[in-house]
Amino acid sequence: MFAVDPVSHQFDDDIDHKINQKTKPVGALGQIETLAKQIARVQLATEPRQRKLSINQPAMLVFAADHGIAAYGVSIAPSEVTTQMVQNFVSGGAAINVFCKQMGFALEVIDCGIKQALVGEKGVTNNRLGNGTQAIHLAPAMTFEQLRDGFAFAEDVVERHHLSGCNLIALGEMGIGNTSSAAAIMASLLELDVHKCVGRGTGIDDKTFERKAALINEALKLHKQHLISPVHVLAYLGGFEIVQMTGAILAAAERKMMVLVDGFIATAAAIVAVKLHSNVREYLIFAHQSEEHGHKLMLQHLQAKPLLSMGLRLGEGTGAALALPLVQAAVNFYNDMASFDQAGVQNVS
Amino acid sequence: MFAVDPVSHQFDDDIDHKINQKTKPVGALGQIETLAKQIARVQLATEPRQRKLSINQPAMLVFAADHGIAAYGVSIAPSEVTTQMVQNFVSGGAAINVFCKQMGFALEVIDCGIKQALVGEKGVTNNRLGNGTQAIHLAPAMTFEQLRDGFAFAEDVVERHHLSGCNLIALGEMGIGNTSSAAAIMASLLELDVHKCVGRGTGIDDKTFERKAALINEALKLHKQHLISPVHVLAYLGGFEIVQMTGAILAAAERKMMVLVDGFIATAAAIVAVKLHSNVREYLIFAHQSEEHGHKLMLQHLQAKPLLSMGLRLGEGTGAALALPLVQAAVNFYNDMASFDQAGVQNVS
Repeated sequence: MFAVDPVSHQFDDDIDHKINQKTKPVGALGQIETLAKQIARVQLATEPRQRKLSINQPAMLVFAADHGIAAYGVSIAPSEVTTQMVQNFVSGGAAINVFCKQMGFALEVIDCGIKQALVGEKGVTNNRLGNGTQAIHLAPAMTFEQLRDGFAFAEDVVERHHLSGCNLIALGEMGIGNTSSAAAIMASLLELDVHKCVGRGTGIDDKTFERKAALINEALKLHKQHLISPVHVLAYLGGFEIVQMTGAILAAAERKMMVLVDGFIATAAAIVAVKLHSNVREYLIFAHQSEEHGHKLMLQHLQAKPLLSMGLRLGEGTGAALALPLVQAAVNFYNDMASFDQAGVQNVS
Repeated sequence: MFAVDPVSHQFDDDIDHKINQKTKPVGALGQIETLAKQIARVQLATEPRQRKLSINQPAMLVFAADHGIAAYGVSIAPSEVTTQMVQNFVSGGAAINVFCKQMGFALEVIDCGIKQALVGEKGVTNNRLGNGTQAIHLAPAMTFEQLRDGFAFAEDVVERHHLSGCNLIALGEMGIGNTSSAAAIMASLLELDVHKCVGRGTGIDDKTFERKAALINEALKLHKQHLISPVHVLAYLGGFEIVQMTGAILAAAERKMMVLVDGFIATAAAIVAVKLHSNVREYLIFAHQSEEHGHKLMLQHLQAKPLLSMGLRLGEGTGAALALPLVQAAVNFYNDMASFDQAGVQNVS
């Protein structure tokens, strides 16, 4: 469905030379340098004569959906809170609104299938695939038709931003119960014990934690024979928002846009996308190491070192929003910092 | 010389209530929340009726100086590079220029005593205490008169920014050889073995590393009987920029300004300042965990968890510049995020 090119290594020597001639010891700007190189590989391949990097019209896409499993006591909050928080996003009062406004992100809120849709509310993109998924320990989360629709909806969103000049999207989410779905996907695709994948979500107690792990184990057992590909894993264990995040990642990489990935849920989608097309990995920037148990293992699997580690466990895309200035700093470093020659500084390295 | 008040805990309950009523699980924004609380304690005490927090006219103060010990082979670069880099700061081509411009920092470059002063160059504050310090393994770094002048110069700089409305300063530095001075201060004040304090600076090899450690040990041995107070440690082992950074921290805390502390050198100054006045600690925000060996131990001593850990080892204040949007995010979170009541979201925590 998506055709993702590998990034070009044609200009690697040029890029290294440019970075290493900056007025600093080699490597002294750490992740800023590696990030600049990653962005340069993506952007110079598409516009080799344009030697400046750029972040244009960055868009934060927040995907919201509900999960059947939430009715079975895996979260501190009921599914109603998903709708209430979407309303909060629309009204501008949530953390993601505050951070997007500060950082210069355009914010798009996407209803991928929350239980109670907001009626007559402007400011929400209608990408609904249903009134929440089926409870994954009792039935497949969704049909393959719903999954295909989800990919197509997500591609439409990304294409719209692409056409308006955006070259970086960030992924956030809202959905009571979605850490259960993400943990199930992780356990299945990385072949890990469920207890290594399940976490505290937004703050559950020991008893709820054990119930959550037990239900995810039930889901994995129930669907075992069907979990034969990443797409199957998404359909049987996924969420409407995770499907659309996966589609958005693939659509963005196909268009050679950078993707700034937030926490545990967004990284689950990233793992599915990379399993589908390994070339996707080089378009992904990981924003924040979540407090959610399991996220660390996901990032290790993807060989990713996130830009931030501030103890966030909120979701919404908040980690990605906070990381944008660091991505912009990598671009500005590459474009604007002087070389030894330009500055008349001795190069002792 | 400086009178630093403790921060007020009078409004702690109000601050906690405000933070915990935001539309998120308690604690889900991690360090953003603890940082907001720290700033609120400082700012609400001075303006209790002004219930909004603010970062006004943030100023990056880059203190440059040379070190006698640099002539004895402890660095990859000769002292000339200090002057060349100061010229680069003035011309706008260094990393700190690029990052300050992006983040909204006013940048002030302060010559605290580089070996070769820039002649007729605008854009450098003349706070010169000499043409570099004495080599600390052979003589006291400076006289007590120089030290006092350094504190006074630094206070003048901070007072000027304070009067223009600035309420946050960041500390950066440039000075070939200054990791040697900082490591010596650290070893003396924290009573640690020199090998735990010495690092690779901007990238020295094993042989240079051992020479650096040996010279620092010589310095500690030579001045042992004089290292009887933090001020004595500064005078015997310090640098002109480290003295002025210490003075700037004290002057800023006295004025209830926040201080954003960069890497290894700035943290050495912070340790001296905190040893002189323990109340200083609550005004300090630590920006970045440096790659420099020893910085981690310094931060542990100060019970500080820095905002970033991106593998930087450049100095100049680059880590502090990159961290400013996170400080602003904490302020915006506190001021602008909706409460459960305002947003009509169920509080399940």
